[in-house]
Amino acid sequence: MPERVYNFSAGPSMLPLSALERAGAEITNYRGSGMSVMEMSHRSPIFQEIFDQAQDKLRRVLSIPAGYKLLFLQTGATGQFSMVPLNLMGEAGRADYAVTGNFSQLACQEARKYGAVHIAASSEDRDYRYIPAQDQLELDPGASYFYYCANNTIYGTEWNYVPETGSVPLVCDMSSNILSTPVDVSKYGLIFAGAQKNMAPAGLTVVILREGLAGRHLPCTPLMMEYQTMIQKDSMYNTPPCWCIYMLSLTLDWVEENGGLAGMERLRRQRSGLLYEALDSSRLFQCHAEPAARSSMNVTFRTGKPELDAQFIAQAAQAGLLNLKGHRKTGGMRASIYNAMPLEGVEKLRDFIRAFEKANL
Amino acid sequence: MPERVYNFSAGPSMLPLSALERAGAEITNYRGSGMSVMEMSHRSPIFQEIFDQAQDKLRRVLSIPAGYKLLFLQTGATGQFSMVPLNLMGEAGRADYAVTGNFSQLACQEARKYGAVHIAASSEDRDYRYIPAQDQLELDPGASYFYYCANNTIYGTEWNYVPETGSVPLVCDMSSNILSTPVDVSKYGLIFAGAQKNMAPAGLTVVILREGLAGRHLPCTPLMMEYQTMIQKDSMYNTPPCWCIYMLSLTLDWVEENGGLAGMERLRRQRSGLLYEALDSSRLFQCHAEPAARSSMNVTFRTGKPELDAQFIAQAAQAGLLNLKGHRKTGGMRASIYNAMPLEGVEKLRDFIRAFEKANL
Repeated sequence: MPERVYNFSAGPSMLPLSALERAGAEITNYRGSGMSVMEMSHRSPIFQEIFDQAQDKLRRVLSIPAGYKLLFLQTGATGQFSMVPLNLMGEAGRADYAVTGNFSQLACQEARKYGAVHIAASSEDRDYRYIPAQDQLELDPGASYFYYCANNTIYGTEWNYVPETGSVPLVCDMSSNILSTPVDVSKYGLIFAGAQKNMAPAGLTVVILREGLAGRHLPCTPLMMEYQTMIQKDSMYNTPPCWCIYMLSLTLDWVEENGGLAGMERLRRQRSGLLYEALDSSRLFQCHAEPAARSSMNVTFRTGKPELDAQFIAQAAQAGLLNLKGHRKTGGMRASIYNAMPLEGVEKLRDFIRAFEKANL
Repeated sequence: MPERVYNFSAGPSMLPLSALERAGAEITNYRGSGMSVMEMSHRSPIFQEIFDQAQDKLRRVLSIPAGYKLLFLQTGATGQFSMVPLNLMGEAGRADYAVTGNFSQLACQEARKYGAVHIAASSEDRDYRYIPAQDQLELDPGASYFYYCANNTIYGTEWNYVPETGSVPLVCDMSSNILSTPVDVSKYGLIFAGAQKNMAPAGLTVVILREGLAGRHLPCTPLMMEYQTMIQKDSMYNTPPCWCIYMLSLTLDWVEENGGLAGMERLRRQRSGLLYEALDSSRLFQCHAEPAARSSMNVTFRTGKPELDAQFIAQAAQAGLLNLKGHRKTGGMRASIYNAMPLEGVEKLRDFIRAFEKANL
């Protein structure tokens, strides 16, 4: 069997090998139960235990304080683009959005269906290469919430601060950097994240929300998009994505064995440090993101020559470094280096970058 | 390692062992790719091939005619309770619902948010023990659609005919009997089914709809609930539930190896025949469903004495026959015998029923 490759995909992407191996070992018979986790009734005690353990581990790893609900949904992060305004627009009927990339732009567009949207900040003017500073945010103190996306997968930028919005609840899409760095959950009204980058296979969306925020959804809200219903039913109004929840639990074991979020933070600094150092010392490559806004999750870079970029991507793939093609909006390359990317994979990519430069400069 | 049990859960439930074993064998390295299906970018050629094969197999097995779109969504069947009226209420703004159980009741209730709902038939008057006949349907020729649920998991009843509704499109929830019997798709406007009973692990919802039905959604429809968007993006507006789609493909291999839907139909007759025969010849047990409405998927029965029912369930579990407890709405027992339940499991349950009767009559 060929060895495993280094997969730099923007998501779904690599999962911890230990989690995959554990899942494989018990795939037809989960710990003596005589059945696969994929076959378990979601109402059975054995699955409830898996569900509870996944919730406990995530609460522990993220230090979710009392007073916050944790939901396991299957809307996708994109579903949250609707679910947030449907539930939180409330009486004020208006919300602030910071547009720093593709997904905050889509979220903003979707929210216009359900209320008045005010662009509190945008980095479109410089092709989303930067993150607006606190004093550039035009805050509406009467807004129902302030929305931003913590890490912009496509452009390779990441907020390096938490916006200060006074009494206006912060809503944050953490799909591409959750579990990679410590977060002060108490600063947020609502955090959501699709699982498929740092947590589990695609099909699970995690929502963390402050008690009291739910319950004022618009009348047209689909039942499955009411936070209140999902809170009351502990995420099991209907059948949850059981396998993804189980995989999340196995991934969290790996996170805890590797030092929790402090350990993940160390690893992400090492990984991104290696790549940015190589790129900064290069005369062939340029980064897309401005230095202060660089993401530790998605490193976007290019040579400036599309045909050379294409060569880079093809040759890297031959060397076992896969899915380095950038999004069509930016062109060039993108190395997504989520939690489960081994340091060795990044070192190989760094070496490949240097060798490619030598051969092509 | 203990052997596998017979799991009579109403869903999620048993999957073909061959599918689980195949998935286990390639869980860290899918066919030499060096990665798990759980780690693949949904935009990669290798995943696109898995996706296309799953669609091709499902089209072939279900004989889906040209002119029908096939979608892989993650709304859950419950999400379809909203998505159907949001998209299909259209200009008429009214729809017919047949209420023959819990899930059609919930679907009906949800549809009232989005239009005028007319109860075209209901079997509530006899505790959902029967299915209304064609001449009992009060049809509104101006309705936007006629909605029914083909198999009622909780009550153990199943429609044994396809309602004739003239030019009004038929919408059917086939969550609990899809792939168990041949279906003439051309009679339907829209079919949907959650995957977790006969198709794949929980987290995937299959929708089959006639071209031209989509595109008239209400303005408040969340983006992810627009059929038109999902058609245009071939179910990949956002990341689909990749692992479930892969498991569906493996399950469909098993269906095809076992004679397709004709084979599944033979098996379901054998399975349900064994149980109903044992129950009909019993003086201890009664079925919940009236004979003409009996489901081949969920066999609901009871002794009439709750403490004896509890004994039955507990003793059966000790014999490796799991999850036979009926839903709280009916009490008693329920044996869910979906496609992947081996005949041997049903034979053991039949023998257990007889032995229990002998010991307790």
